[in-house]
Amino acid sequence: MPRTKGDHEARRRDVSEAVWRVLATHGFGGLTMRAVAAELGATTGLLTHYFPAKRDLVAYALDLLATRSAARPRRAAGAGIAAVRAALLDILPLTEEAVASNRIWVSSWDVALADPELSAAHGRRYGQSRDKLRDLMAAAQDRGELSAGSPADLAAGAQSFVLGLVVQALFNPDQFPPERQTELLDGYLAALGSQP
Amino acid sequence: MPRTKGDHEARRRDVSEAVWRVLATHGFGGLTMRAVAAELGATTGLLTHYFPAKRDLVAYALDLLATRSAARPRRAAGAGIAAVRAALLDILPLTEEAVASNRIWVSSWDVALADPELSAAHGRRYGQSRDKLRDLMAAAQDRGELSAGSPADLAAGAQSFVLGLVVQALFNPDQFPPERQTELLDGYLAALGSQP
Repeated sequence: MPRTKGDHEARRRDVSEAVWRVLATHGFGGLTMRAVAAELGATTGLLTHYFPAKRDLVAYALDLLATRSAARPRRAAGAGIAAVRAALLDILPLTEEAVASNRIWVSSWDVALADPELSAAHGRRYGQSRDKLRDLMAAAQDRGELSAGSPADLAAGAQSFVLGLVVQALFNPDQFPPERQTELLDGYLAALGSQP
Repeated sequence: MPRTKGDHEARRRDVSEAVWRVLATHGFGGLTMRAVAAELGATTGLLTHYFPAKRDLVAYALDLLATRSAARPRRAAGAGIAAVRAALLDILPLTEEAVASNRIWVSSWDVALADPELSAAHGRRYGQSRDKLRDLMAAAQDRGELSAGSPADLAAGAQSFVLGLVVQALFNPDQFPPERQTELLDGYLAALGSQP
């Protein structure tokens, strides 16, 4: 029986799942052909069919991370400061799934900083994220729900706040349960003069 | 001629320098016996004398990072909100040296998250840092230089802000020159109701 297109798609999904599980447990530092093969219950020989070299595996993993992040479910955004809050909550590790993807993002910083091209790609990604936040901040100001000030600075500050909160919550999950993360974010927004 | 204690100390310093340079360029993901040996202009055989296994090299690198961070020069702290500001500025990548050490810290998160013991050690370290900040926040409140609120929450928030700012400055150094990092931090402190 010849392999069908469906077989191929199913196998690609299996490979993606295996790569994701390896990343969630071991990070990019533990992303090896051998680890993915073991997770997949396959031989490393089969994997070289998908990833001729280690760098192909890393590139695939980074794509997978970007794709899954873009496709993740988002909160209903509302408008004004509610949209700002929803966008920031969407980043925080408030669910098991969000813990896994954040753990993989944080892990990706090491591999990205070591490679000028990957570093620039991450830089563009964070820049786009700040641009979106900047527009949301400006809209909240227009509605009188946020005090004056440069929307770009408000966006850079808010993104700083949540990224650093992600890191601390990953290392001290007991001290940063979802409720406290949310309270800290709300305290931050309140300090910006937000009036929901 | 037998080797002297001075030779041994000098060689240890050379090894530390080589490990640091490899970390600053390639991160923990690129920390290999071969890379350190090349940086040192030595054989990998000599290195196994210092580091019998890869994990010994990683442990040494993490110790080196902690030691150098603890020993780094600090700003004159002042008191109250000035001490809070100085402690936070001490974290940011405002100098070439601070860029290198922050780049290594961020890189260490991947290796630490993959190992429960290392992860707990990082968690304790960030917890201690929050505790110090909490005491500084409380002192600033006592002096009437900071609005009311839980000092522990103020500390967790401020540490989030600077850690996330570190990450963004590493990926977008052009958008986050030292002056802008400082302005963003001052904006953050002003939003907390600080009155220097």
